[in-house]
Amino acid sequence: MNEPLKTGATIGILGGGQLGRMLSVAAARLGFKTHIFEPGENPPAGDVAHTVTTAPYDDHAALTAFANAVDMITYEFENIPTAALDVLEKTKPIHPNRRALATSQDRIIEKEFLSSLGLKVAPFSKINSLSDLQTAVKTIGTPAILKTRRFGYDGKGQARIMAPNDVETGFADMADAPSVLEGFVNFSLEISIIAARGPSGEIACFDPGENVHRNGILHTTTIPARISNAQSTDAVLLAARILNELDYVGVLGVELFVTPQGLIVNEFAPRVHNSGHWTQNGCVVDQFEQHIRAIAGWPLGDGKRHNDVVMENLIGDDMDRVNELAREPNTALHLYGKADVKNGRKMGHINRIVTS
Amino acid sequence: MNEPLKTGATIGILGGGQLGRMLSVAAARLGFKTHIFEPGENPPAGDVAHTVTTAPYDDHAALTAFANAVDMITYEFENIPTAALDVLEKTKPIHPNRRALATSQDRIIEKEFLSSLGLKVAPFSKINSLSDLQTAVKTIGTPAILKTRRFGYDGKGQARIMAPNDVETGFADMADAPSVLEGFVNFSLEISIIAARGPSGEIACFDPGENVHRNGILHTTTIPARISNAQSTDAVLLAARILNELDYVGVLGVELFVTPQGLIVNEFAPRVHNSGHWTQNGCVVDQFEQHIRAIAGWPLGDGKRHNDVVMENLIGDDMDRVNELAREPNTALHLYGKADVKNGRKMGHINRIVTS
Repeated sequence: MNEPLKTGATIGILGGGQLGRMLSVAAARLGFKTHIFEPGENPPAGDVAHTVTTAPYDDHAALTAFANAVDMITYEFENIPTAALDVLEKTKPIHPNRRALATSQDRIIEKEFLSSLGLKVAPFSKINSLSDLQTAVKTIGTPAILKTRRFGYDGKGQARIMAPNDVETGFADMADAPSVLEGFVNFSLEISIIAARGPSGEIACFDPGENVHRNGILHTTTIPARISNAQSTDAVLLAARILNELDYVGVLGVELFVTPQGLIVNEFAPRVHNSGHWTQNGCVVDQFEQHIRAIAGWPLGDGKRHNDVVMENLIGDDMDRVNELAREPNTALHLYGKADVKNGRKMGHINRIVTS
Repeated sequence: MNEPLKTGATIGILGGGQLGRMLSVAAARLGFKTHIFEPGENPPAGDVAHTVTTAPYDDHAALTAFANAVDMITYEFENIPTAALDVLEKTKPIHPNRRALATSQDRIIEKEFLSSLGLKVAPFSKINSLSDLQTAVKTIGTPAILKTRRFGYDGKGQARIMAPNDVETGFADMADAPSVLEGFVNFSLEISIIAARGPSGEIACFDPGENVHRNGILHTTTIPARISNAQSTDAVLLAARILNELDYVGVLGVELFVTPQGLIVNEFAPRVHNSGHWTQNGCVVDQFEQHIRAIAGWPLGDGKRHNDVVMENLIGDDMDRVNELAREPNTALHLYGKADVKNGRKMGHINRIVTS
């Protein structure tokens, strides 16, 4: 890494959803301009970005023009086609790096990577055929969960195998996509840790949050999580191992199961993470600014929590509650400006500050 | 006022400086788009706005197109030409209203208005000629301060009259602009109060901040101010009188002198105010979002302070300190993305959270 990025420089962001939107705002707060690359029309991030390119990821001329127009590139999601990255990387640096992205894009590679670091993951088995699945169910047992190796999010691309005779319908649900069978983990809590690493190897973590999901989508994150200091330290140490091993630059989100046998890694995301949204109202430097600071080579915020927070996602017609939520004291609204309310669509979130 | 403005609507903002920039970010947080109208190229607010119109205030076609493209109009500064407002107001509502703007645009009208409400102002006298000034200096005494009636900001358009023989140079400094002579106020502190009023008459205030100026420009605002509860209540009551009398909708900043004879109003600004920037890191709903909520007819935030804050402006080559400031714990950076560092130019600010 060279000099820190100078205020006034332009950061290119792949993806124009709510994460790109909140990254844009954070970048602006540090005096950077942002340029969004997004295939969809009217991306939420476009409302707060300096420039928007609307083009598909296979438009290599548009990708090249985008890379030429910016000073560095980051992304808000992990499913960027490899060929697009090849084009971009020829022109400008991308953070977090390709290895982080490749590792998180494939559940098998991710789990093998985590295991290689000595971190615990759920029992898993590679599934390429019905007979693979039949064999795996015998070893791993039921209940278990079948997931596509790639492109899954918010509970999509998943099927539960509650008993051996769910195998055929479960396999059919995957529509021949390469998959992984994961054993159920008997956990007391789900937590996540949002960590950041700068180019000099500096690491900073936010306090772990406790997550509750509904219908496969994050519902709330509560800070502080009901975990011991030792568990919190474990979370920090394992996030640091991942960051260091990947020579990672940027913010990383790691989802963890708390079990009597210790912390088990569910998955990690090489980006800002929904379970880190609480930092907007809990910390002086939030996860979005932390990511920008990291990739720009600026000093990281220290992650200190000034307020306890409960973050709640606003999904689909939760938007009907906005007027009422706007009246609640100690409640910060963060809406994404999405035109269409859809069932299961993340429309915004609130951060409730917990006052004693 | 009709229905509350719906998320997804577009708010037009006259002026593309740092206040417009922070208003844009706040509007986006509530799901609104913003459209900036600004004569200057590459306005700071343009980095975080959906749309920018670059045109002078006498381009009535551009003003009309702007008004047609937005759902309502607000502004970040008070020196908007009357003719431009006439054009805009034909098409879309403007908040705060014309009377608030007209009153604050002229120091004589402002002081007469404040006096008519029974609020205290410094002794003042209208100056249209050198003999007016000579007479006024005899009545008001020295030291006194001569200010242009209109278009002054950050100490510009002001001359100190320290002794009767400063009268001629002081008068020359005004370059024939209609002016006002103000008597010096012997104050112990300068404070300001940031207050908001919604269309239904709902009022909310932030805690008064204590201001320190340097070279006529705000240097720091410290919250809480060193004032008594009674003084704080007085500040709230007088802000509410101004808001109600003007049938005001939006955020108002009122600068006050604390004296043994009570609070004396220095001036008010019909907009978000530099001395309210601390709310970004002290409150769940900051002054920018409060303004957007007010003009959109949304419920106001209650103004509650979660953190004590010292705000410090970064002026001109204070930008050289950014790298060092970025390392400070408990310190939030807010940079405006201005390309050129100029002496006396507001480039950003920091909010230091005071931890006990």
